[in-house]
Amino acid sequence: MASESGKLWGGRFVGAVDPIMEKFNSSIAYDRHLWEVDVQGSKAYSRGLEKAGLLTKAEMDQILHGLDKVAEEWAQGTFKLNPNDEDIHTANERRLKELIGETAGKLHTGRSRNDQVVTDLRLWMRQNCSKLSALLRELIRTMVDRAEAERDVLFPGYTHLQRAQPIRWSHWILSGAIAGNPLGVDRELLREELNFGAITLNSMDATSERDFVAEFLFWASLCMTHLSRMAEDLILYGTKEFSFVQLSDAYSTGSSLMPQKKNPDSLELIRSKAGRVFGRCAGLLMTLKGLPSTYNKDLQEDKEAVFEVSDTMSAVLQVATGVISTLQIHRDNMARGLSPDMLATDLAYYLVRKGMPFRQAHEASGKAVFMAETKGVPLNQLSLKELQTISPLFSGDVSHVWDYGHSVEQYAALGGTASSSVDWQIGQVRALLRAQQA
Amino acid sequence: MASESGKLWGGRFVGAVDPIMEKFNSSIAYDRHLWEVDVQGSKAYSRGLEKAGLLTKAEMDQILHGLDKVAEEWAQGTFKLNPNDEDIHTANERRLKELIGETAGKLHTGRSRNDQVVTDLRLWMRQNCSKLSALLRELIRTMVDRAEAERDVLFPGYTHLQRAQPIRWSHWILSGAIAGNPLGVDRELLREELNFGAITLNSMDATSERDFVAEFLFWASLCMTHLSRMAEDLILYGTKEFSFVQLSDAYSTGSSLMPQKKNPDSLELIRSKAGRVFGRCAGLLMTLKGLPSTYNKDLQEDKEAVFEVSDTMSAVLQVATGVISTLQIHRDNMARGLSPDMLATDLAYYLVRKGMPFRQAHEASGKAVFMAETKGVPLNQLSLKELQTISPLFSGDVSHVWDYGHSVEQYAALGGTASSSVDWQIGQVRALLRAQQA
Amino acid sequence: MASESGKLWGGRFVGAVDPIMEKFNSSIAYDRHLWEVDVQGSKAYSRGLEKAGLLTKAEMDQILHGLDKVAEEWAQGTFKLNPNDEDIHTANERRLKELIGETAGKLHTGRSRNDQVVTDLRLWMRQNCSKLSALLRELIRTMVDRAEAERDVLFPGYTHLQRAQPIRWSHWILSGAIAGNPLGVDRELLREELNFGAITLNSMDATSERDFVAEFLFWASLCMTHLSRMAEDLILYGTKEFSFVQLSDAYSTGSSLMPQKKNPDSLELIRSKAGRVFGRCAGLLMTLKGLPSTYNKDLQEDKEAVFEVSDTMSAVLQVATGVISTLQIHRDNMARGLSPDMLATDLAYYLVRKGMPFRQAHEASGKAVFMAETKGVPLNQLSLKELQTISPLFSGDVSHVWDYGHSVEQYAALGGTASSSVDWQIGQVRALLRAQQA
Amino acid sequence: MASESGKLWGGRFVGAVDPIMEKFNSSIAYDRHLWEVDVQGSKAYSRGLEKAGLLTKAEMDQILHGLDKVAEEWAQGTFKLNPNDEDIHTANERRLKELIGETAGKLHTGRSRNDQVVTDLRLWMRQNCSKLSALLRELIRTMVDRAEAERDVLFPGYTHLQRAQPIRWSHWILSGAIAGNPLGVDRELLREELNFGAITLNSMDATSERDFVAEFLFWASLCMTHLSRMAEDLILYGTKEFSFVQLSDAYSTGSSLMPQKKNPDSLELIRSKAGRVFGRCAGLLMTLKGLPSTYNKDLQEDKEAVFEVSDTMSAVLQVATGVISTLQIHRDNMARGLSPDMLATDLAYYLVRKGMPFRQAHEASGKAVFMAETKGVPLNQLSLKELQTISPLFSGDVSHVWDYGHSVEQYAALGGTASSSVDWQIGQVRALLRAQQA
Repeated sequence: MASESGKLWGGRFVGAVDPIMEKFNSSIAYDRHLWEVDVQGSKAYSRGLEKAGLLTKAEMDQILHGLDKVAEEWAQGTFKLNPNDEDIHTANERRLKELIGETAGKLHTGRSRNDQVVTDLRLWMRQNCSKLSALLRELIRTMVDRAEAERDVLFPGYTHLQRAQPIRWSHWILSGAIAGNPLGVDRELLREELNFGAITLNSMDATSERDFVAEFLFWASLCMTHLSRMAEDLILYGTKEFSFVQLSDAYSTGSSLMPQKKNPDSLELIRSKAGRVFGRCAGLLMTLKGLPSTYNKDLQEDKEAVFEVSDTMSAVLQVATGVISTLQIHRDNMARGLSPDMLATDLAYYLVRKGMPFRQAHEASGKAVFMAETKGVPLNQLSLKELQTISPLFSGDVSHVWDYGHSVEQYAALGGTASSSVDWQIGQVRALLRAQQA
Repeated sequence: MASESGKLWGGRFVGAVDPIMEKFNSSIAYDRHLWEVDVQGSKAYSRGLEKAGLLTKAEMDQILHGLDKVAEEWAQGTFKLNPNDEDIHTANERRLKELIGETAGKLHTGRSRNDQVVTDLRLWMRQNCSKLSALLRELIRTMVDRAEAERDVLFPGYTHLQRAQPIRWSHWILSGAIAGNPLGVDRELLREELNFGAITLNSMDATSERDFVAEFLFWASLCMTHLSRMAEDLILYGTKEFSFVQLSDAYSTGSSLMPQKKNPDSLELIRSKAGRVFGRCAGLLMTLKGLPSTYNKDLQEDKEAVFEVSDTMSAVLQVATGVISTLQIHRDNMARGLSPDMLATDLAYYLVRKGMPFRQAHEASGKAVFMAETKGVPLNQLSLKELQTISPLFSGDVSHVWDYGHSVEQYAALGGTASSSVDWQIGQVRALLRAQQA
Repeated sequence: MASESGKLWGGRFVGAVDPIMEKFNSSIAYDRHLWEVDVQGSKAYSRGLEKAGLLTKAEMDQILHGLDKVAEEWAQGTFKLNPNDEDIHTANERRLKELIGETAGKLHTGRSRNDQVVTDLRLWMRQNCSKLSALLRELIRTMVDRAEAERDVLFPGYTHLQRAQPIRWSHWILSGAIAGNPLGVDRELLREELNFGAITLNSMDATSERDFVAEFLFWASLCMTHLSRMAEDLILYGTKEFSFVQLSDAYSTGSSLMPQKKNPDSLELIRSKAGRVFGRCAGLLMTLKGLPSTYNKDLQEDKEAVFEVSDTMSAVLQVATGVISTLQIHRDNMARGLSPDMLATDLAYYLVRKGMPFRQAHEASGKAVFMAETKGVPLNQLSLKELQTISPLFSGDVSHVWDYGHSVEQYAALGGTASSSVDWQIGQVRALLRAQQA
Repeated sequence: MASESGKLWGGRFVGAVDPIMEKFNSSIAYDRHLWEVDVQGSKAYSRGLEKAGLLTKAEMDQILHGLDKVAEEWAQGTFKLNPNDEDIHTANERRLKELIGETAGKLHTGRSRNDQVVTDLRLWMRQNCSKLSALLRELIRTMVDRAEAERDVLFPGYTHLQRAQPIRWSHWILSGAIAGNPLGVDRELLREELNFGAITLNSMDATSERDFVAEFLFWASLCMTHLSRMAEDLILYGTKEFSFVQLSDAYSTGSSLMPQKKNPDSLELIRSKAGRVFGRCAGLLMTLKGLPSTYNKDLQEDKEAVFEVSDTMSAVLQVATGVISTLQIHRDNMARGLSPDMLATDLAYYLVRKGMPFRQAHEASGKAVFMAETKGVPLNQLSLKELQTISPLFSGDVSHVWDYGHSVEQYAALGGTASSSVDWQIGQVRALLRAQQA
């Protein structure tokens, strides 16, 4: 019933190979990223073959030399792809054979393309995670430097986006620096997955599991989630209404319609990329779900995800570093953001120090807030007499409560907003950076 | 405190604009897809301006002519991008100005780039959904043609991947054709979202909502989920163990290591793309979540998602059509897959027709299955006497039960596996296809 | 090699059935939601059996009566579950048999549990989508009522969270009302999927596809995405810095630590639920991916997803309605949010009306903004002379530009922020609501 | 304009607090899980307060005693919730006050509810991850035990679901055991996140970041992805067509319609849960995306996700252990699954050992496969003469190739399928288990 062409019914295509299928199947378009590690992996493998007696010393030298030539062609942009090169591995092997002849065929003794794919990707990720890690350290270093230099600036701390208590600007910066914790990339991916210090335990699992890819994509997703939150804060702080910070022109763009506007495009793009990066992670896990064990072509989806996410992370980290390093802060507006009602908790603590249980003190302070609101005066303008109608424990020294600088200095526990505590945090993050670099 | 360069602390970059930021911000790399619809939209807009008295007839003609020239350059591949063309809109506008001078500046009266972005994307999707819709129809048409031609082939139906009852091969094909329901693309996206028959109700919402993008991505995700399931079935049916179908060489690839293998790469790739496509949908929704109203640069993420998903769908639909149209079926193996125990339900129905309640009949049939297993004979080899120890309702006519052809013909309700029912389904799907094309 | 218990190696469990497996397998805990539709479906099915001659009239009456009794027990809370009732279908069938004896066994002639599962869920969703649709209409009605009553209030419109142009408060409200588009639930789910006006085309596809579930979950995800954006806006507008709106106490909560705070918990929860709802949608699609055709137990995941999402939507829609109906707006602050630089676009349009191409006018207006900034005066305080250094087209009538009310009235195109346009939008949404209710 | 009730327009609800909002806001329904750790955390905190001089020794003792009483009430099921107890923290504090009076109010000096929430959840996860880790070890131990006992069973290894090469059944089992790698839970979550050995570096970050939750959910997602793949394999191996394994009745269920069927529901449920668990992970990340820093009520979504995922993992791990420990293997069918063409790679290696480059040898072996197919004989039935027409390197010793046992023994590299290699893997996994337990 089938026609000559193998086509039974309908279908657009006539001939031996469907060209759309060929393109669909081919990974060469994005595989190019891998030329360097593919050569590197093949060189190592040929040394292994020689040691195992499957290549003579002369054959190995011939192969090593040929591979160096292949690498040179890639590096100089003279490598020519054939239409039949469906991936980087076949391309390099084809070229090697053209250069050194049949000996090239010995290079693939005992390893499948699936092995090559996974090894190349691991090697590439080792290189690349190292670059990303450096960019992340650069971002964190910039943040710590700012935190140190601007330690004296106070501004409102928020929870639920409601003004809560006065904090140091540096305290906010460090909350981001810590959230962007560099340990993730380095330690887990580099040391554990990629240093190959350990041997893969099971050959079936080795070509089939993509935990190192999934974990990289998840690390990137989580990192982007943190950066999206930092971006959200800075977008808010940069609104007319907050006016705490101002983006440098290098990271803003104008409006095509409204001449007065300067938009925080850089921060919005950072925020948006959290979705893209996580989408890649979600996509990979869905692809992996329910897949039969060992290699299936479905696994080819891993590479584009890794390359795209790696490029995105690289751009995001650099732009974030640029944004943070050039951001102007408006100290006056930050100071104006502080108001006496943000010291209501301090007022409660004042009573606690006089012996009142905290829950009662909280209630008493709440009454004071309500009284001030009712009278239409700031909280610190209530007279001592008025306060004493709420609790007899109030006395003249309550005036010390109304000093913002004094307030923040109370939070001297590790992790707090006192300057000693902020200095400690700066020291801790610096120590982490040094440890990473080593 | 800031240096000349605007850089306060650290950071890699010196100068007025961070080149990484410029690249990060720029959408021109993937915006090229939009040149045609951007020109088309601008031409329509200039006509609107003339009607509103904001352009003279002469100015309009000048602009229309200039835009045609821009389009011609794109079509012939001679359009030259400047480094400052950050998106397709600025590129086309810049070029128009070069061609016709200051009048070009009048084209953008009263519309922002955000308007242009969203209009262009809607126009592009209208065109493109129409193409995808045609490809989907082609796939379904191929499936229906096969279903009609191979209506006489029976093979095992499965639930839980356990052999259940005999069904027609065409019944399986049509279950896929129906699941790949073409209505989705056409009706919802084309008629409702994109025909612009309706005016957007609210200008704030218009530049900000991306429901038409989200719905397209979800349509694609759901469509791919169906195709992933069809691919899974065909991969299983093509294993040595099932041996029901054989992929044509055009859609298979060999192994680099194992000479005897032929792998169903095409089907595995189809299956894997469900993850990628859904990942894009997930990414967009995450990007949209919690975004302040109106335009934010985050929305720029929509386009690459649409372009990539559209390309993927186009390839997947064509490859799936090719696979289905060239697939060989192994009729003998399909027939061998049928076994008398798959008629156990029919045996129960036999008793039901003799007056036994279904639950009792199910139990009686189960006893017969157990008896046959215990005796190590096929279910249809139990003697009448043996059956009568289970129920006295069994008589000589029970032998009619053991005919597979007769079994499937019982399921003549609409949607069933009887040939009349399969013909009806073929007719229904054909009618849908005709309705779509009209 | 196996022990009596069937246990080969290790494992916690001894005996015929693993109790954890029983619990894992059982859906009765959440199936209870379905008792009513299960009875309803069985009653319809028994009528079908009688018509087909598979039940006598007397048997049908007996079954119908018994099913009514079962329903009564559920309604009165007296239905007793047995430990062996693994789902609602077996529970109801078991009870029916206790009530009317063997005839009960005839009810399931020719339908599998998989048919029942999918029919019940469709029936339940029909009921429930109708309830959700009513709640959504209530929310939209509340929004339209407010939009109408507060049409005279102007406040800043934002893009990129930067102040852009003056708009009506009602324009913002309607952008949300329109985004929350009620058509989704009703039309697609009710009319198309659930009214059963159409017969399922293919029996294999019928028990296996869950498009109606996936589409419901995606509708909910998209709806929540819109609500998350509305919540984000209101959270921002309610900050001390914006102070445009104030949540009623009924939808706020205090702080356990800071007496002065009132947090917008209701809005934060609405925003957060977008994640939860979308997570369910993502989970279902991942579960469906690559599943072999027809029924697999994996499909059991659909119900909990539907029930949880339906409950979440119901709560969210009611709380959102409450929030919108009790929200106080601060008209003075909204007015204070307007500033002359937001009229820079109007200034450009002024020049356009005098004949200047828009791009030049935009540039000229930008120069005026820069001049005002440099001089440290509001844009409307530049003298005519100063403006004329930018363009000779400026004359005395430029003073009309500086009227916010006049500015918004320019945007009288459909969808705009002029009061006529806002009235039109109110009318359109009201018409939609009426159409829905009919 | 507002009515007495604070309601401005529409809305269902009248009164001071919307009861739907109260329920929406309340977390007590699922917070109950936390009673034990909440008491534990409060006891530790009261000791800290005493040390800091904020509680006297007597007050501390009174509080500790009261908290023990609270715990006792929870443990005995006598703790009575009030309608106003919105979460576990307020419930326990309210009860403590009833028991010991005003001193209870001192317990919350200097800690917010947000601190408590995050500390409790960390403590609960520490306990619970330890339980999950034990269940995971139990699963892996069962797998290793089987792998050891059934080391002599060979069956087909597959890639792309095509028969590839003979492997040991134990090799397959171990590929799963290794993929289910127990290190994840223990080391990362227990040691690093939850042992509190390290102090949180920044107080703003501490209440706001949920990395420990996200990482737990991702660990679970990745673990479930592996288990879904193992389940898929076993479902396939259990089909009539493969017939390699048979599930015990304890983990199968029958069909309501088809008496002959036994469905692998347990495995299908395991496979399906990958979607649910990942959906929770996706949901949390989407909730976190773009959230302003510090505490927002959105973060309340974390707990239900953790509780549900933890319950799911616990059930899945136990059922998986049960399935693996009671699964029967069909050795004969496994042996029958092996066929000479699966030794085609060995045939190529034969030639390699005679000096032919691998690529040529691969081609030669492919020719032999083709010749056998053409002649319609198994590959090992080609005569020596026939083989020599392909390559003169074939000689009499080629007959050694056709021994499956010999074939697997070649793969003696670490990770391979030779029995020595499998033994090594068993040893490695056992060592990991021991290390974990210590």
